[in-house]
Amino acid sequence: MTEQQDSTAPQAGKIMLVGIGPGSVDHMTLRARQAIAEADVVIGYVTYIKLVADLLEGKEIIRKSMTEELDRAVSALEAAEAGKKVALISSGDAGVYGMAGPTYEVLFQAGWTPEHPVQLEIIPGASAINSCAARVGAPLTHDFCSISLSDLLTPWPVIARRLDAAAYADFVVALYNPKSGRRTRQIVEAQRLFLRHRRPDTPVAIVKSAYRRRERIEFTTLDRMSEADIGMLSTVLIGNSNTVVQHGLMVTPRGYANKYHLDEGGATRSGEKPGRSLSTGLLGWLETLQAAHAEGASYEDLAAEYRLPLDYIRATLSEPLEAAAPDSSEEEMATE
Amino acid sequence: MTEQQDSTAPQAGKIMLVGIGPGSVDHMTLRARQAIAEADVVIGYVTYIKLVADLLEGKEIIRKSMTEELDRAVSALEAAEAGKKVALISSGDAGVYGMAGPTYEVLFQAGWTPEHPVQLEIIPGASAINSCAARVGAPLTHDFCSISLSDLLTPWPVIARRLDAAAYADFVVALYNPKSGRRTRQIVEAQRLFLRHRRPDTPVAIVKSAYRRRERIEFTTLDRMSEADIGMLSTVLIGNSNTVVQHGLMVTPRGYANKYHLDEGGATRSGEKPGRSLSTGLLGWLETLQAAHAEGASYEDLAAEYRLPLDYIRATLSEPLEAAAPDSSEEEMATE
Repeated sequence: MTEQQDSTAPQAGKIMLVGIGPGSVDHMTLRARQAIAEADVVIGYVTYIKLVADLLEGKEIIRKSMTEELDRAVSALEAAEAGKKVALISSGDAGVYGMAGPTYEVLFQAGWTPEHPVQLEIIPGASAINSCAARVGAPLTHDFCSISLSDLLTPWPVIARRLDAAAYADFVVALYNPKSGRRTRQIVEAQRLFLRHRRPDTPVAIVKSAYRRRERIEFTTLDRMSEADIGMLSTVLIGNSNTVVQHGLMVTPRGYANKYHLDEGGATRSGEKPGRSLSTGLLGWLETLQAAHAEGASYEDLAAEYRLPLDYIRATLSEPLEAAAPDSSEEEMATE
Repeated sequence: MTEQQDSTAPQAGKIMLVGIGPGSVDHMTLRARQAIAEADVVIGYVTYIKLVADLLEGKEIIRKSMTEELDRAVSALEAAEAGKKVALISSGDAGVYGMAGPTYEVLFQAGWTPEHPVQLEIIPGASAINSCAARVGAPLTHDFCSISLSDLLTPWPVIARRLDAAAYADFVVALYNPKSGRRTRQIVEAQRLFLRHRRPDTPVAIVKSAYRRRERIEFTTLDRMSEADIGMLSTVLIGNSNTVVQHGLMVTPRGYANKYHLDEGGATRSGEKPGRSLSTGLLGWLETLQAAHAEGASYEDLAAEYRLPLDYIRATLSEPLEAAAPDSSEEEMATE
């Protein structure tokens, strides 16, 4: 039931884009559950609707098929304009290959702005990359990319450039939509591009239906990735050059071994200081480059040595190196 | 209190790596709350401990500072070996620049395996990238990268190559640990690298403390990114070449405009079919390449035209183009 604050003014509806996470009730956030509970109408792809079946009694349910994403957004707007509270559900996170983008596109096209009576709330959830990673060990740990192999909406050369760039720069990579009955060659091409940069024995994990009844996890290697059992419900995780599988767990180190002696009780390696940039951190690296340049190394030499663009080397060396910031008691803190 | 199933055998402890999400109680998962509630010992960086203060009564709390990540993992193992249930908390997701990787490294170093009585559970949560994105619109939508500007543990040239590759391949990019009192130049270098590939007016959003009391959101552009108010609690989101800011919301389109006419009620553009790969999808692209090659275009011409490696073009054109998969009623479905 929509509340009415004033009997003459109909209550404006609301659209809530709910990321339900991997599809297990325990792994939904409180806010995600609250949003579905308060909704009058719940719209989503039929598989996701089933995942939250216990929350749906008494509500109007609109089941949509996958290629009708624009339809779902349009239905949500129509229901909200009629005064209803609408929960539009996505598995994982609504902002990651989910309904958030298409919904805003449809709303803007319809002339909606944030000043419109219909309000929009996006409720974040753990994306497939996070849920699948949690089931195989700690494969992400460091810099990663997410790439969709679905060329329904994106030209293949764009996808190929992204795969090649991610492999070249040694990111851990999650492949979404890796394969379907119709799209079988894309994963072969992804493997081809990765093998240009990554060892054939690079660990790969394939996770299907994480945290759900039919969960299935397979470990393989890059050179056999395209032969693995990969389906429409799978996420593929490709390790970086440091990732290892040990005791059945896929772990990407964070780089500690560069700085600390893990087997000496965590003592810092000589020349390194805890809480300070590595000697090969930015300032140390710039000092090294300036010294090398002063001794006769050309910009071209340095660009080749560090595999960075020539114009970048030139530009960054042209800027004066500021004095190191004075020691402060402010502790280095990451955002997570 | 640890349960005892058998008065002669001490109950093995347990380590739960809990991703608490952005730091608002509503945005924690049920399992995350359960894990903290069942724990005897809660360990974490002091800021995250404060975020879950309401759940901590009666528990042993171990507050650790940020650079003592290995210490936290060691303390967790010691407590678990003494039979305690330990919750080791990370903001966001434990697998993303969090405690998952360091914990496994310490455990393996100590001789732990999955057969050891001490069990490990990773509880996924929404990472900062998802929470921050939900607060600014729909910036992620499509392929994205996550890059940490912290060179405490990673050499700068590695970070620089990743920034340049991500910008070149037109990913949406989230910068974690963008700046601190000590690390002020890294964001300047990131801007320099991005400007090699991305327009100066590319939208950038800076989100601090998403979903928390001191939340602050700033929109700027790439050419002014390094001058913005960025701190240790900020996440920086850099749009791709299609991202726009409209009505104060940052939205990256999913590519619908390539396929559907948004202003004609979603009719499909001529030559395109809903639920089928774009004509520039992999198979259509390969057909185009083969035709061009047959008409005299060299591999070098094609590599230059599509900005893909020469050896890749050569290899993929050498493989026969399989007949298109027979039409099936199997619907294309994304993992999210």
